Amino acid sequence: MAEKVTIATVARHAQVSRQTVSNVLNAPHIVREETRRRVQEAISALGYRANQAARQMRTGRSRLIAVRIEPTRDGINGSVLDRFLHGLTETADAAGYRVLLYTARDDDQEIATYDDLLGAYDLDAFVLTGTKHGDPRTAWLAEREVPFVTFGRPWDALDGHPWVDVDGAAGTAQATRHLLDAGHHRIAFLGWPTGSGVGDDRCAGWRTTMTAAGHDVAGLRRESEDGIAEGERVLRDLLAHDAPPTAVVCASDSLALGALQAVRDAAAPVAVVGFDDTPVAAAVGLSSVSQPLAAAAARCVDLLTTLLDGQPTDQQVLLTPTLVLRHTA
Amino acid sequence: MAEKVTIATVARHAQVSRQTVSNVLNAPHIVREETRRRVQEAISALGYRANQAARQMRTGRSRLIAVRIEPTRDGINGSVLDRFLHGLTETADAAGYRVLLYTARDDDQEIATYDDLLGAYDLDAFVLTGTKHGDPRTAWLAEREVPFVTFGRPWDALDGHPWVDVDGAAGTAQATRHLLDAGHHRIAFLGWPTGSGVGDDRCAGWRTTMTAAGHDVAGLRRESEDGIAEGERVLRDLLAHDAPPTAVVCASDSLALGALQAVRDAAAPVAVVGFDDTPVAAAVGLSSVSQPLAAAAARCVDLLTTLLDGQPTDQQVLLTPTLVLRHTA
Repeated sequence: MAEKVTIATVARHAQVSRQTVSNVLNAPHIVREETRRRVQEAISALGYRANQAARQMRTGRSRLIAVRIEPTRDGINGSVLDRFLHGLTETADAAGYRVLLYTARDDDQEIATYDDLLGAYDLDAFVLTGTKHGDPRTAWLAEREVPFVTFGRPWDALDGHPWVDVDGAAGTAQATRHLLDAGHHRIAFLGWPTGSGVGDDRCAGWRTTMTAAGHDVAGLRRESEDGIAEGERVLRDLLAHDAPPTAVVCASDSLALGALQAVRDAAAPVAVVGFDDTPVAAAVGLSSVSQPLAAAAARCVDLLTTLLDGQPTDQQVLLTPTLVLRHTA
Repeated sequence: MAEKVTIATVARHAQVSRQTVSNVLNAPHIVREETRRRVQEAISALGYRANQAARQMRTGRSRLIAVRIEPTRDGINGSVLDRFLHGLTETADAAGYRVLLYTARDDDQEIATYDDLLGAYDLDAFVLTGTKHGDPRTAWLAEREVPFVTFGRPWDALDGHPWVDVDGAAGTAQATRHLLDAGHHRIAFLGWPTGSGVGDDRCAGWRTTMTAAGHDVAGLRRESEDGIAEGERVLRDLLAHDAPPTAVVCASDSLALGALQAVRDAAAPVAVVGFDDTPVAAAVGLSSVSQPLAAAAARCVDLLTTLLDGQPTDQQVLLTPTLVLRHTA
């Protein structure tokens, strides 16, 4: 039997990406003329049944995926999910899917909205963000066999469903190592209250790196709700103690901006690293851990299209962030 | 004949907003129990035909409105459209509509996307952003009688279609007046190249206010593409001339952030005002003109629901921004 001709075969033959082949099939007007011709020649030469595939894609599918948009909060950390949404819409468009937005105040309302949306629009799939311990949303969708991926790990059982996440612990570990290399050893961590998956993960990277380097972390971890004022208050308190830290790794840019206010009045300079590399970090020269949000969005779309093509997957994608160094560390 | 009972009648009777009545009809789970009971009593007492209205709303309508999401640029000014999108999704949800996102590289691709979307999803309406002179998109939609509103004026003929916009000239006029009151009279304007509706409007507010106060504006206007580096370069150049300005009003926060870099090295202090009151402005203490984005989004949804209820409207809504004063002016 001849090898099955897939989009991947066509892509290899035409020396383009799978995405480009998908574009030629679904949105030919966005592909350059010369590339389009090369892909179409490959399709003819290989006998790829593009029409049938296209027909299948057009039947029985709404080609709609739904994503929740969060209320605007302080406008600093919210930009992370906005950037993810931009990336998701762009990759989904290229793969022939559209993104439908919804809002919800809490988990119960979000689940009620799933029900509404599935009834009203025959959605293909959901992309969930903000996963947490004991997440009732994924349980609801899984029970009804609605395809979904999450941007964020299922914190209770990592093999529960397909997900894409960024390795927060790797990010704070990088930041801590950078500070250790620069000669710091009293490095504090400013984080959120214990119990959130994301927050505990970011704390763990700092803690394990400090411990592995033989440094005591006792008294160096402080927690508060997220926010600039909160970060300032908590770090001022920490700096007022004996043997204050000479550097601080923060769970967010908001906390880090507050920390920057606090260190202005410190007796000795204190290095500060934030998390999320928001536009504000870039503007004020704050060193910060940067999440690969466009890549995360693209991998979510990849997993979804695999699922929707009927291929079972519970693939997990953990992406590594990068430390962006500016003036503050 | 008895007065026709509308949502407004029910709202008056129950002493709630029209929005709340609409919520009780379309999304009762988001309304507090006590309010819901009061609205339902009013519906019964007045004999409002809620079921028929709800049926009408459920037939012949996708209850989907489409909005373009722009690629992420510098992450500073992009936050304006993100905040508009958040507001739009929230108000649309409350009115029983969902927001579908699409991307497009240019006008041609955007128009091709309208065609795709109208074929694939039977959309109810579009919300367009980024209007400009000779906008081919509104012409295309109007020709096909597709309902739409724009966030942004039709710059060529103000009565062309329903729109919501923010009065940029009023914003820069406020900023200029504030600086005049503070004793400045050599006030510069840093704007975009002449020819864009939004940019020319923001420049006009500065120019007319300066002229009305009897101040010469010759040599005080500079233009460049948007961006932090661009703002810095242009203002450095202006400050190097004889009789440099003592204050500058900028067409965007990006330009203003660049201006802040330039004035650090200036011989005398220079006041700076930005435009859009982005999170970055708040973080660095930049005074800036703030657009009422949630209100603009809500008014867009109002106009759309009026249109979709079959009531012709070419209403125009021009909202006034406010000047947010921080440390830089």
